[in-house]
Amino acid sequence: MYLAALLTSAGINIAVCVVIFSLYSILRKQPRFMNVYFGQKLAHAKSRRQDPFCFERLVPSASWIVKAWEASEDQICAAGGLDALVFIRLIVFSIRIFSIAATICISLVLPLNYYGHDMEHKVIPSESLEVFSIANVQKGSKRLWAHCLALYIISCCTCALLYHEYKSITKLRLLHITEALSNPSHFTVLVRGIPSSQTESYSETVAKFFSTYYASSYLSHKMVYQSGTVQKLMSDAGKMYKMLKTCTREQQCGPNLMRCGLCGGTTSSFKMLAIESQNDKGRSDFDAADLRRKECGAAFVFFRTRYAALVAAQSLQSQNPMKWVTERAPDPKDVYWTNLGLPYRILWIRRIAIFVVSILFVAFFLVPVTLTQSLVNLDKLQNTFPFLKGILKRKFMSQLATGYLPSVILMLFLYMAPPLMLFFSTMEGAVSRSGRKLSACIKLLYFMIWNVFFANILTGTIIKNLVGEVTRRLQDPKNIPNELATAIPTTATFFMTYILTSGWASLSFEILQPLALICNLFYRYALRNKDESTYGTWTFPYHTEIPRVILFGVMGFTCSIMAPLILPFLLVYFFLAYLVYRNQILNVYVTKYQTGGLYWPTVHNATIFSLVLTQIIASGVFGIKKSTVASSFTFPLIILTLLFNEYCRQRFLPVFKRNAAKVLIEMDWQDEQSGIMEETHQKLQSAYCQLTLTTLHQDATLHEHPGETVASGLQDLENLDSGKTQTSGLWAGHSSPEIKELHAM
Amino acid sequence: MYLAALLTSAGINIAVCVVIFSLYSILRKQPRFMNVYFGQKLAHAKSRRQDPFCFERLVPSASWIVKAWEASEDQICAAGGLDALVFIRLIVFSIRIFSIAATICISLVLPLNYYGHDMEHKVIPSESLEVFSIANVQKGSKRLWAHCLALYIISCCTCALLYHEYKSITKLRLLHITEALSNPSHFTVLVRGIPSSQTESYSETVAKFFSTYYASSYLSHKMVYQSGTVQKLMSDAGKMYKMLKTCTREQQCGPNLMRCGLCGGTTSSFKMLAIESQNDKGRSDFDAADLRRKECGAAFVFFRTRYAALVAAQSLQSQNPMKWVTERAPDPKDVYWTNLGLPYRILWIRRIAIFVVSILFVAFFLVPVTLTQSLVNLDKLQNTFPFLKGILKRKFMSQLATGYLPSVILMLFLYMAPPLMLFFSTMEGAVSRSGRKLSACIKLLYFMIWNVFFANILTGTIIKNLVGEVTRRLQDPKNIPNELATAIPTTATFFMTYILTSGWASLSFEILQPLALICNLFYRYALRNKDESTYGTWTFPYHTEIPRVILFGVMGFTCSIMAPLILPFLLVYFFLAYLVYRNQILNVYVTKYQTGGLYWPTVHNATIFSLVLTQIIASGVFGIKKSTVASSFTFPLIILTLLFNEYCRQRFLPVFKRNAAKVLIEMDWQDEQSGIMEETHQKLQSAYCQLTLTTLHQDATLHEHPGETVASGLQDLENLDSGKTQTSGLWAGHSSPEIKELHAM
Repeated sequence: MYLAALLTSAGINIAVCVVIFSLYSILRKQPRFMNVYFGQKLAHAKSRRQDPFCFERLVPSASWIVKAWEASEDQICAAGGLDALVFIRLIVFSIRIFSIAATICISLVLPLNYYGHDMEHKVIPSESLEVFSIANVQKGSKRLWAHCLALYIISCCTCALLYHEYKSITKLRLLHITEALSNPSHFTVLVRGIPSSQTESYSETVAKFFSTYYASSYLSHKMVYQSGTVQKLMSDAGKMYKMLKTCTREQQCGPNLMRCGLCGGTTSSFKMLAIESQNDKGRSDFDAADLRRKECGAAFVFFRTRYAALVAAQSLQSQNPMKWVTERAPDPKDVYWTNLGLPYRILWIRRIAIFVVSILFVAFFLVPVTLTQSLVNLDKLQNTFPFLKGILKRKFMSQLATGYLPSVILMLFLYMAPPLMLFFSTMEGAVSRSGRKLSACIKLLYFMIWNVFFANILTGTIIKNLVGEVTRRLQDPKNIPNELATAIPTTATFFMTYILTSGWASLSFEILQPLALICNLFYRYALRNKDESTYGTWTFPYHTEIPRVILFGVMGFTCSIMAPLILPFLLVYFFLAYLVYRNQILNVYVTKYQTGGLYWPTVHNATIFSLVLTQIIASGVFGIKKSTVASSFTFPLIILTLLFNEYCRQRFLPVFKRNAAKVLIEMDWQDEQSGIMEETHQKLQSAYCQLTLTTLHQDATLHEHPGETVASGLQDLENLDSGKTQTSGLWAGHSSPEIKELHAM
Repeated sequence: MYLAALLTSAGINIAVCVVIFSLYSILRKQPRFMNVYFGQKLAHAKSRRQDPFCFERLVPSASWIVKAWEASEDQICAAGGLDALVFIRLIVFSIRIFSIAATICISLVLPLNYYGHDMEHKVIPSESLEVFSIANVQKGSKRLWAHCLALYIISCCTCALLYHEYKSITKLRLLHITEALSNPSHFTVLVRGIPSSQTESYSETVAKFFSTYYASSYLSHKMVYQSGTVQKLMSDAGKMYKMLKTCTREQQCGPNLMRCGLCGGTTSSFKMLAIESQNDKGRSDFDAADLRRKECGAAFVFFRTRYAALVAAQSLQSQNPMKWVTERAPDPKDVYWTNLGLPYRILWIRRIAIFVVSILFVAFFLVPVTLTQSLVNLDKLQNTFPFLKGILKRKFMSQLATGYLPSVILMLFLYMAPPLMLFFSTMEGAVSRSGRKLSACIKLLYFMIWNVFFANILTGTIIKNLVGEVTRRLQDPKNIPNELATAIPTTATFFMTYILTSGWASLSFEILQPLALICNLFYRYALRNKDESTYGTWTFPYHTEIPRVILFGVMGFTCSIMAPLILPFLLVYFFLAYLVYRNQILNVYVTKYQTGGLYWPTVHNATIFSLVLTQIIASGVFGIKKSTVASSFTFPLIILTLLFNEYCRQRFLPVFKRNAAKVLIEMDWQDEQSGIMEETHQKLQSAYCQLTLTTLHQDATLHEHPGETVASGLQDLENLDSGKTQTSGLWAGHSSPEIKELHAM
């Protein structure tokens, strides 16, 4: 590839970006797309709806860029929580380190690469890109010392920046904890593996255990119930009813696609079911005895102080480590109720199974894709489906089948990965939504680095050499750095185009939100639904975006010394990402739950990984270039980087794993002095709410007095029938966040 | 090797064992060797000394075998603690599983191996040993199903037995905790990384921190002091003085080797120093201000209840995880004081350094040994030291140099390993003696399995093939099972002789205690010292014995299917080990500290490792024998074994890592009801005693009232000078356990 070609490609991509960004700046001004581009603001305040139409709405403007640029960290944190801030910090960190790397490499390394051989240079635009990479430096050249020096500077700067960021995010996390004074999760412990008993219900067992061993600090508890199939069906029906309610209302006003076609016949039955669900209050599903039978071996236990909850969450409770397993409870909105019902004793086997399946999926993802791609060629298709012969005779169709289908299959497989990883994380038994996303994020990170980064290097090498030769040479672990070292400079060209296309295009997609846009249009024009609450708001997809940004970081690090030409393109990507994601966090995504900065350790580890990988590859390249001294000079760097990582692990990581006793004790004091402790205790019971239909009334009274549970519990369960009048109206109010959440998935 | 040769070797070894055991049964009856063979009993009760001489003392008897056999588990536990019981359980487990394996393999597998080929058999004694191994089975033979079945039975029995043992030892550990009601370590937390302050001493900082955040449960604390060089010198001098005191007394009575020769001139100076140390009480070393300066950033903090101590030990105390690091305190006698003074912030780097050094030592141990062995040949020695030429001309000397020296060097290197590993574990910063031994045990386990088990297989393979060929084939991970599979049946012969010589001989050594015997004789006849307290008592060397027994277990498992002839020899070893070690635990070794059964998880993991290794090798052998179905049938077995291991890790391991809250709370109740809590609190201060000269008086009063520490602490430090009269007499009484401990190392 020549420099001119690369620049042309960059030009085209820039043009596309400019067009899309302009389009966005127009679309965002249209009130009808408000729920696509301002979900965050709509969720907070349902304000002005109908702006008068004016011409200004059709003129592209850069105001959103200014707004995104000017927003302070506090605003980001307020809009997107600590996780959003961590994500922005990741981008800022990338901008900083790659600015330094670009300055050094383009001023120092690039000229040395370019004049590496005593050769006659062509005009710069028609130079091959390899001329700018380390491949152009002569073997045994003294100039490799400059590369070694650049590597040292970049490594040191990265470590310094990483340390600074880790420290600052640790502080922010502590602030995040101390500021959330009314957070009910601080007072709550999730207990699983409650031993079942013949004579007592789970609830009684829990009350007895904690009022015995935690007499001074135990407040009350709340059982987790099995979400049975009937419950699920009813909730689905309720949702469908709600969604189609507007639809049926519209039917009375004017003509509609729906009435005769799509599902016109079923609307009335849904309506019936919905009415039924409001009237049929004597159903066995919510019977007292049945509810008891539906108790799971899991419960939320509330304590009087944060410190007591912390202590209970950390301790090994009983002699059998599979019983009375305690852990910190997630935030009420963050709880993933379905997984709480799983029996604790089978969780470990699930975790192992998912671990194995994930590894197999990540490692062998490319195999079926490649096979499918190789299957999709003209001859095979014709042989399998004889009727295709006629169609395929036309040149256009045959081009489509051979040229277009394989990449479509690859894309489909790639789009399949994030939901699949999220599914894997669900199956693992995550108890919180945020934990599930974090787990999926880590899985996708491995997936991306292996299937995009390493797979491309490998395929690049395989094309050059014979397959057998490569696999034979790769089996010797000592050869791997050398193989990477020969592959990276040549693969750098591909990475550049990847950043230009996939990177910049993903940002355009992100800002334009075509999927949400199409959904919006479909709802509006096909379903004639104008109630915006049903479109749902989306939570930030950290599990796809963080791996993507990190992947570009890995590419940047590994190519920085070898092919410094990649750095300007990368910097442009990060600058755009900075603006786009800030805008999205401020306007589009809603923060329902967050991990509280738990993404940073992952980011830190991934950065250290890419840094060490860079150093290993550089050492290999120096070895190939017969500069053994430079090669051996990089070894101390690897060791120092790993030691730095270990230090950070010791110094900062525990704060992300456990809460400091001192902090929580001081918060307890603060609460006691200001006298809001009682108030917080009152709120605890209503905070964790699983069954919207039944638990609100029942649980609030059931466990108020732990000592009297057995008696009062029974009484309250009997009171349940009389309390049903209260529960009938709860569908509409309480199920809507559930619906939104489901849309957001 | 032929069967007859093996049986001859076994016969010789049996004869040697019988002779040594008879010798032991005579020696143990001699009163003068009482402290060698009855250290345990002497430590408990200094009873009868002078039995009248009778002829019976010179007749070998089997009474010790009967006594060792008859001792109950409770007696073992009382004499050697839970660790000794775990060790005996390991031997019992080995006997059980190898009895089952021997029954199956000798009745089922051995005949199939023997008649594997259609060949004419010689008389059994002159058969090659290979005829009895799986190497004799034809390729593709259906008989391999029997081997597969045997493997399944052995694996299932092992898992069942392991589960049973793990469960029973977990119960014993819980019992060990609950029974030790007066154990001060339950109330104590070791705090490290105390932040230094300009205005306050460490002691004041600790008092302030814990009386603020643990106001209700904090009792008092005790600082750790730097053990300076002067202190060390004085303690050494004291020991020497004590040792030679008897010696000088003897000098006045009769003629002595010592007076004129060895160190006669120095005894008086030692005496002077000792007197000096008693008189010179104004020395700056024990000055109050100096003592404060010698405070380390570590302390033992005492709490009112066990549960409070548990909670404090588990929590992350402050926002900085490198400060206020808490952990469960070891038993007072178990504390390794020297390491407590190390600054906590450098511990992680020490741990990494030692980890790397240990790995290098284990992995490359054989390289220098082999080099030295190859260097020690006649020509080299003659060239380096020309004066040797005359000596080496004699045939006997040349044989000695070539035949004997190499094995001596190997033995010396092998004997070097245990103290070196113990030294590594010390450098790691272990805070307890038992923890140090456990860590050394794990290191030695890796060392033995790698350098005895794998190294022999490798060298066996290398001799057969070319070195280059082997290394090339080993680099492919898939080949490793196959390589092992071809090597194991041939190496089995070596393992058999290894068990006969090294195994049985080690037991003879163990029971005869030649080193202690020689020391005893040296003390008695060379130093003319008859005070038995100076000989010292020894603690059980778990760090060398557990790896040895496990190593024989690994050999047994891997060879059981391949070469079942090894099993009878192994069973004899384990039976002898059972008797010998029980005898040693009951009579010889003193239990000063113990881990409380923490060795079992290591034993469990090692057993699972050997089981999985056996299955992998078996799968490889089945593959080589062209029985792919049997080969693939072993894969589910491997997975099931690993799952079983994971289950045990979930079910039992946490009890060995953390104390269960419920158990400690119940113990607290028990104490409160019986009213001995106050008494226990009183004892806490005196339990942890670092500086025998100074701390006894000072610390008992210094931190009694945490609130008044600053004032009373200063006062008490001033009182120190007046209190010195009390401390002067403490050398003799309190340093003797220290001396014993030193001898025991």
